Amino acid sequence: MQINTPSLAAAAAAAAAAGRADTLGRLRAAMAAAGVAAVLIPSADPHLSEYLPGRWKGREYLSGFTGSVGTMIVGADFAGVWTDARYWDQAAVELAGSEVQLMKIASGASLLYIDWLAEHVAAGAQVAVDDRVLGLATARVLGDALTARGITVRRDLDLLDAVWSERPGLPDAAVFEHGAPYASSSRAERLALVRAAMAAHGADRHLISTLDDIAWLFNLRGADVSFNPVFLAHALIAPLSATVFVGAGKVPADLAARLAVDGVVIAPYEQAAAALTALDPASVLLIDPRRVTAGMRAAVPGAVKVIEAINPSTVAKSKKSAADIAHVRATMEHDGAALCEFFSWLEPRLLDVRRGPLTELDVDTHICAARARRPGFVSPSFATIAGFNANGAVMHYRATEQAHADIEGDGLLLIDSGGQYLGGTTDITRVVPVGTPSEAQKRDFTLVLKGVIALSSAQFPSGTRSPLLDAIARAPIWAASADYGHGTGHGVGYFLNVHEGPQSISPTTMPEPHTAMQAGMITSIEPGIYRPGRWGIRLENLVLNVAAGSSEFGDFLRFETLTLCPIDSRCLDLALLREDELDWLNAYHAEVRRRLRPHVDGAALAWLELRTREI
Amino acid sequence: MQINTPSLAAAAAAAAAAGRADTLGRLRAAMAAAGVAAVLIPSADPHLSEYLPGRWKGREYLSGFTGSVGTMIVGADFAGVWTDARYWDQAAVELAGSEVQLMKIASGASLLYIDWLAEHVAAGAQVAVDDRVLGLATARVLGDALTARGITVRRDLDLLDAVWSERPGLPDAAVFEHGAPYASSSRAERLALVRAAMAAHGADRHLISTLDDIAWLFNLRGADVSFNPVFLAHALIAPLSATVFVGAGKVPADLAARLAVDGVVIAPYEQAAAALTALDPASVLLIDPRRVTAGMRAAVPGAVKVIEAINPSTVAKSKKSAADIAHVRATMEHDGAALCEFFSWLEPRLLDVRRGPLTELDVDTHICAARARRPGFVSPSFATIAGFNANGAVMHYRATEQAHADIEGDGLLLIDSGGQYLGGTTDITRVVPVGTPSEAQKRDFTLVLKGVIALSSAQFPSGTRSPLLDAIARAPIWAASADYGHGTGHGVGYFLNVHEGPQSISPTTMPEPHTAMQAGMITSIEPGIYRPGRWGIRLENLVLNVAAGSSEFGDFLRFETLTLCPIDSRCLDLALLREDELDWLNAYHAEVRRRLRPHVDGAALAWLELRTREI
Repeated sequence: MQINTPSLAAAAAAAAAAGRADTLGRLRAAMAAAGVAAVLIPSADPHLSEYLPGRWKGREYLSGFTGSVGTMIVGADFAGVWTDARYWDQAAVELAGSEVQLMKIASGASLLYIDWLAEHVAAGAQVAVDDRVLGLATARVLGDALTARGITVRRDLDLLDAVWSERPGLPDAAVFEHGAPYASSSRAERLALVRAAMAAHGADRHLISTLDDIAWLFNLRGADVSFNPVFLAHALIAPLSATVFVGAGKVPADLAARLAVDGVVIAPYEQAAAALTALDPASVLLIDPRRVTAGMRAAVPGAVKVIEAINPSTVAKSKKSAADIAHVRATMEHDGAALCEFFSWLEPRLLDVRRGPLTELDVDTHICAARARRPGFVSPSFATIAGFNANGAVMHYRATEQAHADIEGDGLLLIDSGGQYLGGTTDITRVVPVGTPSEAQKRDFTLVLKGVIALSSAQFPSGTRSPLLDAIARAPIWAASADYGHGTGHGVGYFLNVHEGPQSISPTTMPEPHTAMQAGMITSIEPGIYRPGRWGIRLENLVLNVAAGSSEFGDFLRFETLTLCPIDSRCLDLALLREDELDWLNAYHAEVRRRLRPHVDGAALAWLELRTREI
Repeated sequence: MQINTPSLAAAAAAAAAAGRADTLGRLRAAMAAAGVAAVLIPSADPHLSEYLPGRWKGREYLSGFTGSVGTMIVGADFAGVWTDARYWDQAAVELAGSEVQLMKIASGASLLYIDWLAEHVAAGAQVAVDDRVLGLATARVLGDALTARGITVRRDLDLLDAVWSERPGLPDAAVFEHGAPYASSSRAERLALVRAAMAAHGADRHLISTLDDIAWLFNLRGADVSFNPVFLAHALIAPLSATVFVGAGKVPADLAARLAVDGVVIAPYEQAAAALTALDPASVLLIDPRRVTAGMRAAVPGAVKVIEAINPSTVAKSKKSAADIAHVRATMEHDGAALCEFFSWLEPRLLDVRRGPLTELDVDTHICAARARRPGFVSPSFATIAGFNANGAVMHYRATEQAHADIEGDGLLLIDSGGQYLGGTTDITRVVPVGTPSEAQKRDFTLVLKGVIALSSAQFPSGTRSPLLDAIARAPIWAASADYGHGTGHGVGYFLNVHEGPQSISPTTMPEPHTAMQAGMITSIEPGIYRPGRWGIRLENLVLNVAAGSSEFGDFLRFETLTLCPIDSRCLDLALLREDELDWLNAYHAEVRRRLRPHVDGAALAWLELRTREI
């Protein structure tokens, strides 16, 4: 394995680093002028999105760290980025040579940077943060911690804006309808459901800022950010009408007319906060403190009664209907067929040494192309992770033109990829052998598979809080003194975000009531083992919560594995598998074969038959 | 099985119920006079203890419900007791015929009664609660919820006191030293440790109200409440001195003199709050909001800076030293030997039908007597639960003179018992067959054992948050569509409370940082299956967190099973056990045999050999 770093790219990187150092200097001058000791730059936009439009990638602009999660603090003589274990290797590379320090966040300590501020900023000093991109729940923790130390939080300064030359504008992709046959209920039905929940809370207004909630509620989609088919908007729901605040010109006239039929009004994106300020003082407003910014909350007049609860749409959209699930199952067959085509190309190509080594970038190109040929395909659902050996141990690795590996010699190739289809969102990780994997690699692969099987075959009471299931996947891996620094599973949307709540099979998610497992939820199961500098293994399937009958102890759920793609048995150490685990794998492969066979032919069909053979 | 309810006892119960109805009437008159719409009666004393001295059993006095957990609300035309699934059957029996309603609390919703108050009390009305027995953390949730609805919380009224004729006084048992060889570190060393933690928090005063913390910190014990060897006290720690507020005459003069050598001053119990009020305004006070009452917090002058964190002693005492553990292992051998004697008496007695049926009370008597013959024995560590068939399904069942079952016919006898010894605290549950258990009973027994084995043989990273381990024990039980309505395990003290934190293997405990598993902690593993009206099964061992080596993923822990007593293989459905599970059971029985053999002879030895035979 080798890292290709052309000298031209190195020069460009050096120039970018110099530009960042200069920007930090100008930011510090602005801080000094405003009397601010430190600036906090959250990894967020006004919608608290995971994937940020360029306009809000301030932390990346200032630090050079491109990971999707990371909070930055700039002080007079300090600059640091806090991020978790998934990004440590990546951040170490991207921050090398700059003054920006990597501040490692251990599992479950995502607000550690607040402690740092409380300790390092002097009493009486000011910390600035732009409250338009600061979550309300986080703002409260921040405020409590700093106020207790006599530090003032200034939320009205966007110091970054002044020093950000050529800051990107707002994205302007068109909004489109996600209608029949894919949407299983109408906009009117969904609005009625949310209004019923509002009424149950005694609320007559409800602000929604999260983009997946808005897309789901109105059966609309967009393309404002990479990978998630959403559009920038806020929504204010009233008993008889609803207003969507969205950029001018993004909603076509015919769509606006259809929205109007359902009592949905379009208003300028910038007017959302003003609409809150203009609320009748007798209003009762429902907001989700984890899903609106402190800035939006501050816009609400003091006289308005505010009720805080999870967005009703967040819970509703997680429970996929029978019609949704039928589309997802069909989509999984197409996605699996695309992967058969990809892998049936990959395997002989890896052996064809005359053509020179394949690179990780080639993997990305071909896997995306295979998906793109399938019906209903819209885009990848996230940036493909194709990591060979040591790169597979970088949890959110992305091969780039500047830095990627050739795939040659012996080892393991980890491929984590997914697609957005009109009929569902996919996300799958497989690990395939290159040359001859070592016994130690096979052992790790088998342990990870044992984790997948343990959780995939679990049954549990309906309503079990999802974080509590995490240890079931981890136990076989812990037993071998290994572990992985990320959660076992995340919720997945329906042609929506590849990461969605409210469920989360993760040890760092508090098992609060809203994390309860309910029928119809789709979640990933993706344990792993990562040995930095050597190899990384992760196996990931999406699973559906399905009813498993009732007893005197209540209703039970089990998982139906939705993802359909062989798990490469050449990587197995069969001596480590129990008989029931082998039975699971054979049954899974039989199902994969049965379901994918009608969708492939030629080399892809031959590959499917070969890789799903009973062992 | 039959319930013996002599008619005299029935008459006494009827008279008690009439007395309670009368008291409720007088309480409502007092409420009306004070302008209070509802009174909240927590299940707590000024030390937030689990086992309450009679003086603070107000809920039991008013309602007749004797369970150890239950919160009561009395309104003008409502009275209810909120309790969780463990107590539903018991509460239904004890509240039957009174106006007091059983309000069922589902798992994890322990503050549900606050929602009830918020919904049912009118805005502008007052709710009274005695803040001397209200936890500070709970008080905040209560205050926030009720204030938001416009309801006022009056914390200065003890309406109960006025209507409680013959309210018990304060207990006056003597305090004694738990010294060498059992205490593995001196009072001075423990105080130094707590003072170092105070300094790390920047605090120069620390209030401790929890009785187990005080007993541990000062190497003192008492007998003020049943089962827990603690004494009523508060403690105020300063850098160079410490004050223990304790009832007059309870600390013998020689002990007081030894305490004085360590800078520990004795002061009257009633003066604790006044000492807080008299704090120098420049003080910085450390308190644990879950371990002090709202009343104590209210006594602190506003100028004093208050820092909130878990009591340092709570964490320190959970990590038993090597010397503590050596004593615990020896104590477990004595406890196991006592159980061999008990069971070798029980089995032939059950078969001796000429002597008439054995009762559940006889079981309690004989098991306590067997323990009492062992060195270092002090008292039972809780009220023995001996429940035959349907009574075994009542999770906190206690057989009484008035109501208990004869043990005859076929079925299962559940025995949950434990002892306080100078060298440790024990807590064990076993289930034994009576006559011929059914196939369904054997199946449940085997499933519960599978849960015990799964968790007992788990390895996990040091620092894993204990609630996240719960599902490992539950998975084999869930797989059979069964479950149990209590946590899998609780921390256990060292000649201290049989329930102690900070760890808790429970789905209803939030996996906060202080719940992390650390070497030296002792925890129970006690899954179960309860079929109301039919039978109940629980198997419980105490386990120790021991180091299991390190890898590139950090330090790992495993469990050493401390409890030594055969698990009755006559109750097993061997077809349900995997080979590795059978291996675990045989290895456990070999260890039990090896360790207990030197401590028993005669019938007890023969029984030990028989019940630990390899299967």
